[in-house]
Amino acid sequence: MAGSKLWLSLLLAAAFPGPATALWPWPQYIQTSDWHYTISPHSFQFKYHVRSAAQSGCSVLDEAFQRYRDLLFGSESWQRPALTGEQHTLEKDSLVILVVTPGCDQLPSLESVENCLETFSQLVWRSPEGTFFINKTEIEDFPRFPHRGLLLDTSRHYLPLHSILDTLDAMAYNKFNVFHWHLVDDSSFPYESFAFPELTRKGSYNPATHIYTAQDVKEVIEYARLRGIRVLAEFDTPGHTLSWGRGVSGLLTPCYSGSQPSGTFGPVNPILNSTYEFMNTFFLEVSSVFPDFYLHLGGDEVDFTCWKSNPDVQAFMKKKGFGNDFKQLESFYIQTLLDIVSAYGKGYVVWQEVFDNEVKVRPDTIIQVWREEVPVSYLKELALITEAGFRALLSAPWYLNRISYGPDWEDFYRVDPLSFEGGPEQKALVIGGEACMWGEYVDSTNLVPRL
Amino acid sequence: MAGSKLWLSLLLAAAFPGPATALWPWPQYIQTSDWHYTISPHSFQFKYHVRSAAQSGCSVLDEAFQRYRDLLFGSESWQRPALTGEQHTLEKDSLVILVVTPGCDQLPSLESVENCLETFSQLVWRSPEGTFFINKTEIEDFPRFPHRGLLLDTSRHYLPLHSILDTLDAMAYNKFNVFHWHLVDDSSFPYESFAFPELTRKGSYNPATHIYTAQDVKEVIEYARLRGIRVLAEFDTPGHTLSWGRGVSGLLTPCYSGSQPSGTFGPVNPILNSTYEFMNTFFLEVSSVFPDFYLHLGGDEVDFTCWKSNPDVQAFMKKKGFGNDFKQLESFYIQTLLDIVSAYGKGYVVWQEVFDNEVKVRPDTIIQVWREEVPVSYLKELALITEAGFRALLSAPWYLNRISYGPDWEDFYRVDPLSFEGGPEQKALVIGGEACMWGEYVDSTNLVPRL
Repeated sequence: MAGSKLWLSLLLAAAFPGPATALWPWPQYIQTSDWHYTISPHSFQFKYHVRSAAQSGCSVLDEAFQRYRDLLFGSESWQRPALTGEQHTLEKDSLVILVVTPGCDQLPSLESVENCLETFSQLVWRSPEGTFFINKTEIEDFPRFPHRGLLLDTSRHYLPLHSILDTLDAMAYNKFNVFHWHLVDDSSFPYESFAFPELTRKGSYNPATHIYTAQDVKEVIEYARLRGIRVLAEFDTPGHTLSWGRGVSGLLTPCYSGSQPSGTFGPVNPILNSTYEFMNTFFLEVSSVFPDFYLHLGGDEVDFTCWKSNPDVQAFMKKKGFGNDFKQLESFYIQTLLDIVSAYGKGYVVWQEVFDNEVKVRPDTIIQVWREEVPVSYLKELALITEAGFRALLSAPWYLNRISYGPDWEDFYRVDPLSFEGGPEQKALVIGGEACMWGEYVDSTNLVPRL
Repeated sequence: MAGSKLWLSLLLAAAFPGPATALWPWPQYIQTSDWHYTISPHSFQFKYHVRSAAQSGCSVLDEAFQRYRDLLFGSESWQRPALTGEQHTLEKDSLVILVVTPGCDQLPSLESVENCLETFSQLVWRSPEGTFFINKTEIEDFPRFPHRGLLLDTSRHYLPLHSILDTLDAMAYNKFNVFHWHLVDDSSFPYESFAFPELTRKGSYNPATHIYTAQDVKEVIEYARLRGIRVLAEFDTPGHTLSWGRGVSGLLTPCYSGSQPSGTFGPVNPILNSTYEFMNTFFLEVSSVFPDFYLHLGGDEVDFTCWKSNPDVQAFMKKKGFGNDFKQLESFYIQTLLDIVSAYGKGYVVWQEVFDNEVKVRPDTIIQVWREEVPVSYLKELALITEAGFRALLSAPWYLNRISYGPDWEDFYRVDPLSFEGGPEQKALVIGGEACMWGEYVDSTNLVPRL
């Protein structure tokens, strides 16, 4: 869909000034005036322009028309208002939509451009007497960054399906277009795998109530698609995988205390063929379940303590000539994993450690920056990543879960992801950012207010 | 109502162990066992004991029975379950309530003792198959402090009526029994006064939508009463009154810049007879609208800058022989106000500054401690207040609005209001505490999660 110009063909102005325009986010260009039109909930229509590439039957727009009708006017049954004074209502007032890009019903992608219905809905206001108005307004708009994401963590606390769908609505109102779904982590494994059903049976908080079935996942993806939102699924390895180990024996590295296994487990065991066989099958499934071109493969915060303690890992290190450099072992694992996922035709996003630890990745890898000051400031990190020619996503300054007293949003708002030292070709590699809502202290009771 | 012993006359045990008892707050005495009884939603009844001082017709209990029925079993229409194995359901299983104190339907007061239905509801649990159980349990319980309050601030952000009612429910679940309603403040005046309707017309955020009508106030008081909760209304003067000034000309002190009025206003003007005439009428109304014996009269954070700047106030100080001690002027105002309110047969609670500034107050005044370290630590303040023979309420460590990242509740929970140095007669004067939810950054969207 294309909406670089929002054309309003509403006619007939009323005579008194309306409230200040309050659009969010602020458009690239706007010219507004005090002239405003009356909108009648009875007769108002969204219409396709005759030259529009999308026409009736395009479900994304058809359903958006219905959704925004309800958002604008509610589900009240509208009585025809008595008209008085200088106000006039057109029988057939309408918003005409002209889409220039074909393929309306495809999945959104990194290259998609956005629709303008949200902007339109924010322009409509209501007088105390209940009449709807829109000021005469000309807008040109396009997003500054193509990737405007929000991360939800459904492992530390399970989020019921309705919380995820509510969040997708909130994202649409704020023109976010990527739902980064951090599905699993140490705490729990709620993603129900058909290849490995033991993962949820043993790794979820409750296999009857605290899981995402195939149907749930489909519903999230479709609900997102209808709102122009991509679903970027993350399956983070080799760290943050404790919950995986409950359902797949032998997957995690046994930690040693001296010469004996301690009974605890560390990251995914990178020295076994069985590990890669598992990953091969698991990511084949994941690649087909999540249609977005990109998967998020994690790669953050790998703790080497357990690997160091394990004599089999030590022997493997020796054999491979890694010396004592466990970053090379981590790289070995991740490179193998990236090869697997590449073979399934997927692109990938990884956390910044993969770059920091000099893992060899494909040139089209997207690196997500989450650490504020370590090893360098996040702006320096963006400079380094883009200097190396990789695309970058920024999250470090937008950890929404880290709430504090007072107006946190001001600091979030002031961040400019491009305020690092680097040439324009580097800046062009910053594809956007993601706000993160990690789940240590967030569940369905405080998710929406905190967002 | 009295519930010092919770007698369960449920019969017949099922054969498998239930979950650990999770009561909140923890009772004074509890003995539990793995034996548990099946409760059938079809036949379960709350019943009055034949010797109970309250009987059917006592609305507080009748309505509580209905409310807790719904809380326990939901509003599902219950099919008689098929009974298998060792489980048995009694046709007439019931919870028999014996109330020893007469006067069930009166308003709750500082001297009220509490009912046990909330405890009972927390003991009932449900198996994954949907059967309700309660473990055989003996409990003796009574509250450690008679005043367990929660403050809501409806001035900085208006809270819609449903938010207040929801909060009263949450209070009941946590056995809080005083709703401290900080109705008005500098930001807005949402309390609709019938004596001075201009107060809301000019002092509320929106006189059509952001006010509490007489009917709203009645509804809050009744909703609270049915849950054993007192409503302690606060009208804070002489500071925190900017919103009052819009509707009552001459009430606030005009501030001066040099020899000229600056156009801004300070605290209530304490030198005019008209001020006390207004307060006389206003608090006559308030005393009749809010039936609790206590009113909260505020008295915190009086800024003397404006008083100091005003030549009429300076002249008044001279005439009264107050010198430059504006605390004496504050005391003059507050003592006059306390006399007014006393004449209406009310008791009063004030913030600690009234005590700190050595205002002469009645011996039955309750002093609320809110400052953590100034002029002394809150524990030292409690010691000083109780040494002077006054009753004290603690709030300083429980400012719930001051949210931070992580489990704030642990610090709140660890506070012991009696951990100050003082004799048992001093400790006995600490009647309880109040958690405060100030409204600078709290409105209906984040109130419940933050609570």
